[in-house]
Amino acid sequence: MINFECDYAVACAPQVMDRLVQTNMEQTTTYGKDEYCKQAERLILGMVGRPEGAVYFFMGGTIANATAISFLLKPYQGVLCTTAAHINGHEAGAIEAGGNKVLALPTKDGKLTAQQIEDAVKTYQTDHAWQQLVEPGMVYISHASEYGTLYSKAELEEISAVCHQYGLPLYLDGARLGYGLMGEGNDITLYDLGRLCDMFYIGGTKQGAMFGEAMVICNSALKKGFSNMMRHKGGVLAKGRVLGLQFLALLENGLYFDLAKHANEQALRIRAIQEEKGAPIPFDSRANQQFIIASDALLKKIEEKYEVYDFGIQEDGNHLVRFSTSWYTKEDDVTALVEDLRQWL
Amino acid sequence: MINFECDYAVACAPQVMDRLVQTNMEQTTTYGKDEYCKQAERLILGMVGRPEGAVYFFMGGTIANATAISFLLKPYQGVLCTTAAHINGHEAGAIEAGGNKVLALPTKDGKLTAQQIEDAVKTYQTDHAWQQLVEPGMVYISHASEYGTLYSKAELEEISAVCHQYGLPLYLDGARLGYGLMGEGNDITLYDLGRLCDMFYIGGTKQGAMFGEAMVICNSALKKGFSNMMRHKGGVLAKGRVLGLQFLALLENGLYFDLAKHANEQALRIRAIQEEKGAPIPFDSRANQQFIIASDALLKKIEEKYEVYDFGIQEDGNHLVRFSTSWYTKEDDVTALVEDLRQWL
Amino acid sequence: MINFECDYAVACAPQVMDRLVQTNMEQTTTYGKDEYCKQAERLILGMVGRPEGAVYFFMGGTIANATAISFLLKPYQGVLCTTAAHINGHEAGAIEAGGNKVLALPTKDGKLTAQQIEDAVKTYQTDHAWQQLVEPGMVYISHASEYGTLYSKAELEEISAVCHQYGLPLYLDGARLGYGLMGEGNDITLYDLGRLCDMFYIGGTKQGAMFGEAMVICNSALKKGFSNMMRHKGGVLAKGRVLGLQFLALLENGLYFDLAKHANEQALRIRAIQEEKGAPIPFDSRANQQFIIASDALLKKIEEKYEVYDFGIQEDGNHLVRFSTSWYTKEDDVTALVEDLRQWL
Amino acid sequence: MINFECDYAVACAPQVMDRLVQTNMEQTTTYGKDEYCKQAERLILGMVGRPEGAVYFFMGGTIANATAISFLLKPYQGVLCTTAAHINGHEAGAIEAGGNKVLALPTKDGKLTAQQIEDAVKTYQTDHAWQQLVEPGMVYISHASEYGTLYSKAELEEISAVCHQYGLPLYLDGARLGYGLMGEGNDITLYDLGRLCDMFYIGGTKQGAMFGEAMVICNSALKKGFSNMMRHKGGVLAKGRVLGLQFLALLENGLYFDLAKHANEQALRIRAIQEEKGAPIPFDSRANQQFIIASDALLKKIEEKYEVYDFGIQEDGNHLVRFSTSWYTKEDDVTALVEDLRQWL
Repeated sequence: MINFECDYAVACAPQVMDRLVQTNMEQTTTYGKDEYCKQAERLILGMVGRPEGAVYFFMGGTIANATAISFLLKPYQGVLCTTAAHINGHEAGAIEAGGNKVLALPTKDGKLTAQQIEDAVKTYQTDHAWQQLVEPGMVYISHASEYGTLYSKAELEEISAVCHQYGLPLYLDGARLGYGLMGEGNDITLYDLGRLCDMFYIGGTKQGAMFGEAMVICNSALKKGFSNMMRHKGGVLAKGRVLGLQFLALLENGLYFDLAKHANEQALRIRAIQEEKGAPIPFDSRANQQFIIASDALLKKIEEKYEVYDFGIQEDGNHLVRFSTSWYTKEDDVTALVEDLRQWL
Repeated sequence: MINFECDYAVACAPQVMDRLVQTNMEQTTTYGKDEYCKQAERLILGMVGRPEGAVYFFMGGTIANATAISFLLKPYQGVLCTTAAHINGHEAGAIEAGGNKVLALPTKDGKLTAQQIEDAVKTYQTDHAWQQLVEPGMVYISHASEYGTLYSKAELEEISAVCHQYGLPLYLDGARLGYGLMGEGNDITLYDLGRLCDMFYIGGTKQGAMFGEAMVICNSALKKGFSNMMRHKGGVLAKGRVLGLQFLALLENGLYFDLAKHANEQALRIRAIQEEKGAPIPFDSRANQQFIIASDALLKKIEEKYEVYDFGIQEDGNHLVRFSTSWYTKEDDVTALVEDLRQWL
Repeated sequence: MINFECDYAVACAPQVMDRLVQTNMEQTTTYGKDEYCKQAERLILGMVGRPEGAVYFFMGGTIANATAISFLLKPYQGVLCTTAAHINGHEAGAIEAGGNKVLALPTKDGKLTAQQIEDAVKTYQTDHAWQQLVEPGMVYISHASEYGTLYSKAELEEISAVCHQYGLPLYLDGARLGYGLMGEGNDITLYDLGRLCDMFYIGGTKQGAMFGEAMVICNSALKKGFSNMMRHKGGVLAKGRVLGLQFLALLENGLYFDLAKHANEQALRIRAIQEEKGAPIPFDSRANQQFIIASDALLKKIEEKYEVYDFGIQEDGNHLVRFSTSWYTKEDDVTALVEDLRQWL
Repeated sequence: MINFECDYAVACAPQVMDRLVQTNMEQTTTYGKDEYCKQAERLILGMVGRPEGAVYFFMGGTIANATAISFLLKPYQGVLCTTAAHINGHEAGAIEAGGNKVLALPTKDGKLTAQQIEDAVKTYQTDHAWQQLVEPGMVYISHASEYGTLYSKAELEEISAVCHQYGLPLYLDGARLGYGLMGEGNDITLYDLGRLCDMFYIGGTKQGAMFGEAMVICNSALKKGFSNMMRHKGGVLAKGRVLGLQFLALLENGLYFDLAKHANEQALRIRAIQEEKGAPIPFDSRANQQFIIASDALLKKIEEKYEVYDFGIQEDGNHLVRFSTSWYTKEDDVTALVEDLRQWL
């Protein structure tokens, strides 16, 4: 079986492992207060152009999201996002565990629009029964989105502007940030994120780290209390340095971006064959996740040879199927898939 | 201004007030352990045919719902309901405050179907990533629904059957239960609720009480710990007897149903004029809340003379407007409205 | 049986009931936005000298405390109080339900000291593992305290000063505030509370109202979002006016204080006989709750004739027993008790 | 500086790292459903004699405790433990984050007694105001305790018996379980834990793993829903296999116990010099954490050369100071410390 089921089936990039091996027996301060974490923090803050900000390292995306959102919201507030948002459908209610409602707005492509945000706020503000409603308290977006689509810089600027107009912190889930930033046609940089978001995380788990996400607090007014909240949520790793070290390995020499580039290139080969065959493309993904529409019969054929992610039967009776490539995806495996799809589509 | 804005603008039915006045200076046990509460509990359990059940008295609907749902769910579970459900949109996130997700399913008429429940459970159970999803843990419906529509006994039987097939407690929000049970064409009785629901509440606040909802635990297996949860949520009234007394006054002689009947009769006069004029009727309401579609101009005319509840501008550019009657609604006021609508619609 | 078990065995003062009866059939705005609530708010803000503040009416003490504390704290913070605090031992974990830890400090007399507060903050701030600790985020005191003891104005000034020095909001639970303010030797006024506290509530339930507590936000910087939180917690009464009306009846003509004065006078007769007989007085209570130390035998004698509150067997093998008087306590009943205690002590 | 500050300053035992390196590029199923985790689960269940149980792997102790306790308790229940318990003082309110109260009972040596548990339950059950109290819902102990002390098998049997008599699940925090099981005089085995506890975890973070704790559900009736709760809390590692692999490396050949043995031997050398010098020994620790009483002057001397953990100034004006050894502690470093203490004590 060839694995296109997800982008985190392998432990970590060899360069990351090397760094862990080299430093293994060093004795350092705990809970992320060591020199490696500080060094990684400085490196990241430099890249995002927010030297006065802060970086905290998490072990995974769900605990990162849950901590950031609990931190940014008051109990009676909710987080605006799309219905496709990871926090809405795939975190087992971890946001609600903190007492906050997920205010999911409809989406076709996995992206939220500035207009949707503005409408939601105005609806709340003008409802005479506003005290009965959940107040929109922040905005959650992801880049690349859950459907592999990308925000343009112009869209992100608009979203940021409307957020700041209405006093909503803008939070970006970067579980697949590398794939997004290296996505075809992407015009957003880390520096833009530092400038336009209040908080975001650079995802490591799906992009070369054994585990780990680097939460960047861009808005220095939001630093106070974050480490308390992180501990309160159980999200602090005892030997925090292993997180800092991994991000150093990934970011110091551009490895993070090289790995993402490889994955995207392989993914776009899958897209190319869909286009070539005129197969429907459900989402305009330019990153490492590609989607196809598959009948029962087609899915069966695929699953005999490939592991994929089946989103289940859609309204039209067909399956929505996801192929993920990753930094470790082999060119030959994609070649095999492309050849098969050429026949099957 | 004539008030059709809600059904709780007056304090309480005179008979209820009389009972409070007569007993005012009596000294009784506190926190609902007094004889009046016990008497009201016995009366209610008799009416619902569940002598082995239990009744707890709450001060309002939101705290009643929040307590029952926190009680019935595990933290990682969610409550299935419609998008129109009061718990979804009008309780300021009180369910999420307890850590649970509201799993709102689409509705046109405010009612949930047995099929929707079954589909939701199966979707959860068959998703290979089920651990990432929120498990459907119970079902919430309301009768009359938020749109004034009524479940038929057959529909309720079906819902109850599918709930019990999948091990989901069935909870019914009876904020407007009297209006529902006395609704035109209703074929459900209190006894049916006792038989088909695991828990439901008989709403007092909107139906003759100064305040108060009687939570009925039909399923005696669910009694243990409920009083602890109620206290944990801050939902216990010190002088619980004033709740028991109100329900005695309402239920001993059928007052509860007489009051609801009056409200419904007045509401159906509003509906009748809509039908007469061929005006669109957004929901097939047979209870005390009637809805019209109103242009900006029409709404303006209405609001010069009447207080109504504006649900805001809908997709077609018109307002969805609610007229509530109540037990205290004056026939003459409805006559005036009907005459006006005859001209305006 | 003569009831000294608690101070809320009767529904409400006749003058309060009269006000409810007179206004019963009026139609008013809901959820506390009516004219009566506004009038009561203005009256109270005038009395506390905080015209720019706000007042919200709750149905009971637990939900009032839980809402205020959730509102004032961040999730990772805790509330400093005494081990005797109502929130620590008698609210079934309602504070923890909101995610916050109760940081209970030892007390002998039910009062917290400024020194204890300062020590707790310094301990937190100087602990090298502070991120693992719960940050003290506010202070909770009660007046009269759970043991009937009273803060002096000097003590309250000190507490307020240390709170504000360390940025901790000061919250006062006034479940028995009238009894406290009318307590023997009390030198604190409502105006002082307005000046020294950030938030406090004027308790109605135990002092002449059928139910109800008036939450006063003294510090106008804390107003934003409170009504949202109140709703989120399920603490808003639909017909809020019945709360406003009760406080108008209690406060407009000093009834609140007259009722408390009566209760205290009767309580001090119980204390006097203890002093006369040289019986040990566990707490220096000057308000409506008096405590005695009783052997099993004595308690048995008492309970044949009187309902009292037994705090259970203490370290010395005797019971700690509480006698509560209230605004409705009859002079003759206290005379009977005093005569008995004269013989029994 | 020589580090005795904690037992987790180094990443992991070389054998553990080897296993991670060897398997690094393998593609496996995610979220702990891989073969390595299954293999580790079988190994552990065999060792504890509970083949029908289950094992779940966590990234750290706080999230493990918070998940288990939220899982075992109802919202209105609390967890009985000592005031020294890690969950009471060093998890930043992570238990309260789940809505539960920590019911801390006094301790001198860090251990809870069966009698304390029974008394707490009886106090709750016999209090006439029990609905206002937090119901004791489970018991939390740790072995070795936070003070390095050990339960005897007889004590653990007694605790287990009283827990099961009163229907309280018994949970054991094994953050330092290896050090405990290899502690001087310890007579408890993994098999005993499987027999006497409902749930416990085998701590890896402090005992040779880079990170990780293996939660053992001994009582198979408690398996249902645990994986949902784990996800709901954000406690699931994407590449779960790196946890399973570490426990395989630690447990397959007894490495876990060898590492602990070494640490304990070094710790007991510190204890020996205290005994030799007649210095006060605050807790009868037989495991890897040793405590001394140090004046300001002594502490200053120590801290010039050694990193230690200062618990702050105690009532007698001296510091309570902890020396932790670990699996990586060098014999020479302890020799140096012992020589210094010989002079300084």
